Amino acid sequence: MVERDPHPDAPSRPATARVGMVGAGQLARMTQSAAIDLGVELHVLATRTDEPAVLAGARCHLGGPDDDAALLAFAEAVDVVTLDHELVSDTALAEMAARGHAVRPSAAALLHAKDKLHARQRLDALGLPVPPFAAVASVDDVADFAAEHGWPVVCKARRGGYDGRGVEVVADADAAAAVLARGGAWLVEALVDIEVELAVVTARRPGGQRVTYPVVETVQQGGICVELVQPARIPVEVADTAVALGQQVADVVDGVGIVAVELFVDRAGALTVNELALRPHNSGHATIEAGVTSQFHNHLRAVLDWPLGDAGLRVPAAAMVNLLGPTADAAPGGTRAIDASGPGGRDPVAAALPTALEVADAAVHLYGKASRPGRKIGHVTVTGRDVEVALAAARAAADRLVGR
Amino acid sequence: MVERDPHPDAPSRPATARVGMVGAGQLARMTQSAAIDLGVELHVLATRTDEPAVLAGARCHLGGPDDDAALLAFAEAVDVVTLDHELVSDTALAEMAARGHAVRPSAAALLHAKDKLHARQRLDALGLPVPPFAAVASVDDVADFAAEHGWPVVCKARRGGYDGRGVEVVADADAAAAVLARGGAWLVEALVDIEVELAVVTARRPGGQRVTYPVVETVQQGGICVELVQPARIPVEVADTAVALGQQVADVVDGVGIVAVELFVDRAGALTVNELALRPHNSGHATIEAGVTSQFHNHLRAVLDWPLGDAGLRVPAAAMVNLLGPTADAAPGGTRAIDASGPGGRDPVAAALPTALEVADAAVHLYGKASRPGRKIGHVTVTGRDVEVALAAARAAADRLVGR
Repeated sequence: MVERDPHPDAPSRPATARVGMVGAGQLARMTQSAAIDLGVELHVLATRTDEPAVLAGARCHLGGPDDDAALLAFAEAVDVVTLDHELVSDTALAEMAARGHAVRPSAAALLHAKDKLHARQRLDALGLPVPPFAAVASVDDVADFAAEHGWPVVCKARRGGYDGRGVEVVADADAAAAVLARGGAWLVEALVDIEVELAVVTARRPGGQRVTYPVVETVQQGGICVELVQPARIPVEVADTAVALGQQVADVVDGVGIVAVELFVDRAGALTVNELALRPHNSGHATIEAGVTSQFHNHLRAVLDWPLGDAGLRVPAAAMVNLLGPTADAAPGGTRAIDASGPGGRDPVAAALPTALEVADAAVHLYGKASRPGRKIGHVTVTGRDVEVALAAARAAADRLVGR
Repeated sequence: MVERDPHPDAPSRPATARVGMVGAGQLARMTQSAAIDLGVELHVLATRTDEPAVLAGARCHLGGPDDDAALLAFAEAVDVVTLDHELVSDTALAEMAARGHAVRPSAAALLHAKDKLHARQRLDALGLPVPPFAAVASVDDVADFAAEHGWPVVCKARRGGYDGRGVEVVADADAAAAVLARGGAWLVEALVDIEVELAVVTARRPGGQRVTYPVVETVQQGGICVELVQPARIPVEVADTAVALGQQVADVVDGVGIVAVELFVDRAGALTVNELALRPHNSGHATIEAGVTSQFHNHLRAVLDWPLGDAGLRVPAAAMVNLLGPTADAAPGGTRAIDASGPGGRDPVAAALPTALEVADAAVHLYGKASRPGRKIGHVTVTGRDVEVALAAARAAADRLVGR
């Protein structure tokens, strides 16, 4: 008995398509599950062989997202190229398209997720609501903006930020100076007095056909999504406005695949567009269990230009809680040993899984990532008739895994 | 950029457990999706590298289910051994247990699925309802049985049958002689005048804790399940009796993991046990979308002795239609070309997928198997408020894939 390459290039393999995803994190990992259902052969461009999607069995090509040669070779191996994160070489994406490869979303669409100033300018020019913003080159620019809109303001790195990184609320000019001293290009925004944060997830095909999931209500801490409920607990008029905005943004940027639009609702009830993502998004995770079609299935269907699945929910309500790696002093709530002792069986979150599963209606997703403080290592979804009940159960299971 | 072994034995891998499944067909493939969610490292003992579960990324060990050396080495690599089919070497299973490996289900439990005479005798001795049966060694034995119970009778191979193979309805002694002439051990059963066929799927832990899914109503053609609805359209008293029978059988055989019990309801309303399976079963496939916990998640949880998930449905109703490879003259209904052209993109069923996806609420599962007439190559599930509506939609999508 020998362990062999499980993926020989057998010409008789009845795969429906080969999709290449740049990046091999948890979004690619969950896309692999959808790919299994659809008979799609998912390839990932990974930087390491122990990344979440590779552990889940996606076909592994090694290379970084800034390695143009690796990206171009990757494109040759698949029918369509898509992404599990935005930080992919612009030049490689442009060259892929020039060589006739299907790149979905396109480099031009992706720029709205990569470059926050570009997104703000574009949406603002089209009359879509965004918070007041300005490009800044100096502390004086920040101070001028604050003089008009008031302190504190939000400094955002134009590129490279995610999960709260590159987003800083600054209270005065000294704080702004410290942020700008890090280097790179920054913009500044007025701080929105947030009542609730929403997300609208749309799947869109190349020709513009799209479906949109019910609005998600998210709770962010330190710029990281910690939990969500779906549908959002908001008046129907607000939900309708949010969906219309999410769809307009998806159309305006000409997104293909999942387009997730984060929205602020301020205390006066006004909606503004926060960030957007052109890939499966944390705010869509509950659709795995709650959706007639998950965002991962619909991302594949959209980038393959296949008919999209119903974006409705199968259930009245769902809640999802992210598992963020606990800090050293917060041990997982469960201390019971597990029956199995795999090579990494001593990982505290993995070891706590059986205890979490005592919450019998909790769907636990672990990403195969080693636990580090604050790192997204999994999530828990619970569906039901009522968002509050579902949220309580999801939190209970999550507490047992990460000892919040 | 190189393609490397995606599964190095990194000691830091935070897997929750390593489960070894003997066999790498569609049941192992769907178990791989559940393993991804749970952070479980699924290993399969496959005879070829293009089997469904290997294509889905389960860790591949090559070896046959009758290769004792391969089976014993496989057991060394995992925390617990389980199965995706029954035809596994008895001696290897016994030796694994003797060496202290966790084998779930046990060889003794598995014998009830491998040996139909053993199952009949055991259940009959315990007073559980089974059709009249007898071991037969000659045509005279069959004729004697028929003299008591009437022609036609059902001849069943004691071992090795599945999906209708090894099950023959014979009308007279000549037909019986032709069947027995094939060799092997046979039993004979009275032909039940079937009103409806049911299946009861239970997940059971080593200590006996179990959960049971709502009763499934199946439609069989030529011994192969072609479609099902869940919950079954039967009076609640019949459902209660069916569940009680399914649970009794699971307990009596001391099954661990999924235990599926197929039941006949005759035209007088009496229930008898037909076959049983000690593994995830076709009758449980709709639980992927319809169940709070799928049978594949619960199979893993049961064999790992982890708390079981809720076996209720998230939805009022579900229907599933199997995709059986079409015969040469029945082309898939859809003729539209797909956008992608993978190495096996010309497979007619794979090529018909986009057309089937126009049925927007259909969840299509393709197993990565080349299409051959009558072969199970996938299934379609639709959930909803009403089994009839769901069944119509599932059939519509299936028709587009296999041109029924």
